[in-house]
Order: sequence, then C-alpha cells, then structure tokens
Amino acid sequence: MKLLRYGPRGAEKPGLLDADGRIRDLSGIVGDIAGGVLTDLDRLKGLDPAQLPLVEGSPRLGACVGGTGKFMCIGLNYADHAAESGMEVPSEPVLFMKATSAICGPNDPIIIPRGSEKTDWEVELGVVIGKPAKYVSEAEALDHVAGYCVINDVSERAFQIERQGQWSKGKSCDNFGQIGPWLVTPDEVGDPQDLAMWLSVNGERVQDGSTRTMVYGVAHLVSYLSQFFTLHPGDVISTGTPPGVGLGFTPPRFLKAGDVVELGIEGLGRQRQVCVDDA
Amino acid sequence: MKLLRYGPRGAEKPGLLDADGRIRDLSGIVGDIAGGVLTDLDRLKGLDPAQLPLVEGSPRLGACVGGTGKFMCIGLNYADHAAESGMEVPSEPVLFMKATSAICGPNDPIIIPRGSEKTDWEVELGVVIGKPAKYVSEAEALDHVAGYCVINDVSERAFQIERQGQWSKGKSCDNFGQIGPWLVTPDEVGDPQDLAMWLSVNGERVQDGSTRTMVYGVAHLVSYLSQFFTLHPGDVISTGTPPGVGLGFTPPRFLKAGDVVELGIEGLGRQRQVCVDDA
Repeated sequence: MKLLRYGPRGAEKPGLLDADGRIRDLSGIVGDIAGGVLTDLDRLKGLDPAQLPLVEGSPRLGACVGGTGKFMCIGLNYADHAAESGMEVPSEPVLFMKATSAICGPNDPIIIPRGSEKTDWEVELGVVIGKPAKYVSEAEALDHVAGYCVINDVSERAFQIERQGQWSKGKSCDNFGQIGPWLVTPDEVGDPQDLAMWLSVNGERVQDGSTRTMVYGVAHLVSYLSQFFTLHPGDVISTGTPPGVGLGFTPPRFLKAGDVVELGIEGLGRQRQVCVDDA
Repeated sequence: MKLLRYGPRGAEKPGLLDADGRIRDLSGIVGDIAGGVLTDLDRLKGLDPAQLPLVEGSPRLGACVGGTGKFMCIGLNYADHAAESGMEVPSEPVLFMKATSAICGPNDPIIIPRGSEKTDWEVELGVVIGKPAKYVSEAEALDHVAGYCVINDVSERAFQIERQGQWSKGKSCDNFGQIGPWLVTPDEVGDPQDLAMWLSVNGERVQDGSTRTMVYGVAHLVSYLSQFFTLHPGDVISTGTPPGVGLGFTPPRFLKAGDVVELGIEGLGRQRQVCVDDA
C-alpha cells in the first residue's frame, strides 16, 4: 500500500496510490495519514481502491505523513559517507534532531537560506513509526514501523559545522526536509536493508548507493532510540545518507538557485526539487 | 496575565490564574493556549477573570503551552555554567533540540530512564513564541514573544556526552521537559534579563542565579534563531542554565528515585518534581 497526502500546504488530504498510479481520496475513511491511523494501517488494506474517489489532475503532494512530533536523523550511518566527511564510523548511532517545521512535500522547492553558501543534499531512507515504542528489542522493533519513504535531509554545512556545536542549526531550515512521495507499507517494501538509492543534481548522478551498506540497520535504530524515549506514531527516523554529498567532492559542490535535485529509493518513489533563494 | 493548562495529560484545558491565585476556565473563550491563540493574547486581556468559571480543587497542571513544534535549547549560555562544565563560552549561541515528546507539566515526575546514572537538573527561562518570526532584527524580536515560563531542562549526562556526538539523546527522554506552571505575558514580567532563578534538590539550594548573567539575551536569541528557520507560535526556546547543575559538583551529583526537585523564576512561579525510576 502506498499512502500519500495531497493538496495545499497545511491542508493536505489523505490519499492512496492505486495500481495505475492514480491518487484515490481517502478522506472519507481517515482524517489524515497521521497519529493513530498509522497504528492500524491493516484496516486500510481491505479497501478496494477502485471504490475510492479518483483525484483528478496532478495536485501538489505534501509530506506522506502528518503530525510528526520527532524528526530524528542518524549521522554518519554509511561507512563510505563517514569517510568522505572526514569522520569515523561512530561506535553507536549518532542522533540529531531536525525541526519538524523543516518538513515539506517531496517536490517542494529547496529554499536556500539567506547567507547560505553551502546548501547540500542527502538522500535517505525514512522510517515512519506506527505503534508507540519504548524499550523495544531489536527482534520486535519492526512491528512498530508503519512504513518507509524517501527523505532529502537537506543540510547547510556552514550552519551545521562552522557556527558553533550541534548540527540542528544547519539541518532545520525551512523546506530542508522533503518527505515522500509515498509512505509504503512494509509488506510492499520487502527487505529495508536491500534498497537501491540515488540522487542527481541537474541530471548528473552524484549519490548511488544501497541501504545494504547502512552501518546500523532499521531494526537496530528503532530499538536503540526507544531506549532513550518513546517513539510515537508519526515520528520519523531518517537513517543516514550514502556517499556522494556535495561536501564530499573536491572541491566541495553546493546548491544554488535554479539547480534541480532528483532523488529516489527503490520501490519508494522519487522526488524532484528546484532550488530557490529565500526572497 | 498568567495563562495555564490544566487537567489530565493530553486533555488539558486552557485556564487563567486570577488575582487570588485561583484557576479560571478559559475553555469557553479559546480552545487551547497554543497556535494562533498565542499570536493575539491581547484579546484575552479585556476579560474579567471574575466572570470566568472557577475551577475547583487542585487539578494537575500541564505544560503552560500546547502544540509546541520546536523545543529549542541554548547551550552554555551562562558564563559560569560553561566554566563548571569545562567548556568555553561559545562565540555565537549553541542550539540543540529537545524532543517535544519530553514536554510535561511543571509538577509531573522526573522519570529516570532505565540504565541512567547521571540524570541532572537545569532551571531555565523559557520563551514562548507568539507571532511567526523569520529574519527578524533584535530590535523587533520581542514583539514575537507571547510570554515567559519556567523550564526544567532535565538532562542525562552520560546519554548527552558519552554516547556519541550531539546532545539530543540525553535531553529528550520522556518527562525531561517540565514547562510552566504559567505562561506569563511580557507586560507582567518586566525585564526578562533581570529575573532571579533558583533550584533546590531535597531542600538544598543548588542553583541560585539571575537571567542578568545570560550571555545571549532573549532578543538576541529570537533574532538569531529566526535567521535559520521560521519560529512558529508555540515554539519554545529554553535559554540556558546558570551554575549549579549536578555535573558541576565535585564529585558530580545526580538524581535518584525519591529525590525532590523544586525550582522557580521570579514572577514566573515554581515547579516541584519527585524523581521516579522508569518501571
């Protein structure tokens, strides 16, 4: 099942992608793809998409999950990416938080903040929590996952690294978190640790990896984070990026207005963003 | 005006403290002390508290603001506290994020996470955003503040410092963010940079400071953060702690089940928490 949210920002409606790739309106069935709805997605599996209203045209897509309370990111979770960043693979997962106000739709623009010269890209596998999780074991962790999605963990490297401590500052700018297009349920994803992922800038492939080379896998991350705090339905874990970010090039490459970023993960769909200056 | 939220967790109602210290029910006037309500608190100022329903008894207090999207904290923002932590005063504000799922009422217990041996306290002045702020100047920053409150920025020092990078892990545990009892509007607070603040553990005063010695003041912080992202109504900035945290003692002192923590800030009320183990 591929769930999505469509319509104007802040007023998205829930939808479902049918077998022909068309959007079906779910707003008669659930209020949003958020909160408790994520805890019991099974009840949507019995629906016949053909019986749901067809959404005409090509509406804007919002983030595929609403009401996210925590937007957690795992740093340096691909050995090759750690190397290109000049950092060691950490001995346990590195957590940082992105502001939830950074969340936007998969094709919404990347807004380059005023004064930014180092806005960068990061394709990541997103994990959406379905059932509350606290002190869960790795064996039971995946039962708490509602589904998976594509995330662009947009990052301003000067804000992140050169502006005093802690990374949140360079990770939380408005529109620095494209999530979607779809929330894909685990039964359709198969093994989350064997998904090809890629990102291109102006048509040039710069990231080309697989979740196979993730250091700490999804089950480990859900279990690990749940030792520190409760994971709630709608919480999102962005699991780190493979090599090929702008910072890793020699010389480094960063985004400027007009650049087009495209990215995708096997089975989870693709995103396309145009970069714009913050007016 | 002193605004508050009372009732069971997750189902708090908005209230107002009258001149006699009694709670008046605001739920007939506003849905919550949250979101757009914070943008126009002036409309509540004309209310006659005596005309509002009196709330009987002593209900639980929730966090004094609801719907918080970003729980931002400023690190090392008192010169003496930086010194006791063995760190330099930063050349610009250090931002880190606490999970909003850590937020709880002012008198809710401090829950010591499983495996924790270094749970610590931090009394802090909280700033609640009223009007959206993006790229605002220091001169106009305070116009975006709805009010002030007491915050206990509870911190697990091993999780924060010894468990790989980034502080969020040790700052985001459940019930690690007591906010309240009241959201006090700026007209009643006076100068936010001249408020006495204190914290005691089992009756012993351990923190005794004033917002006078804050390195980066409220106006600077609101302006500074707004250069990175939009501050939304209900967002909370916890502005750092003065000296006297457990980590700063020789040897360090940390909380254990049964300990009682009390804290307060001049004009903003007080909190009282009992420490409990996470069962």
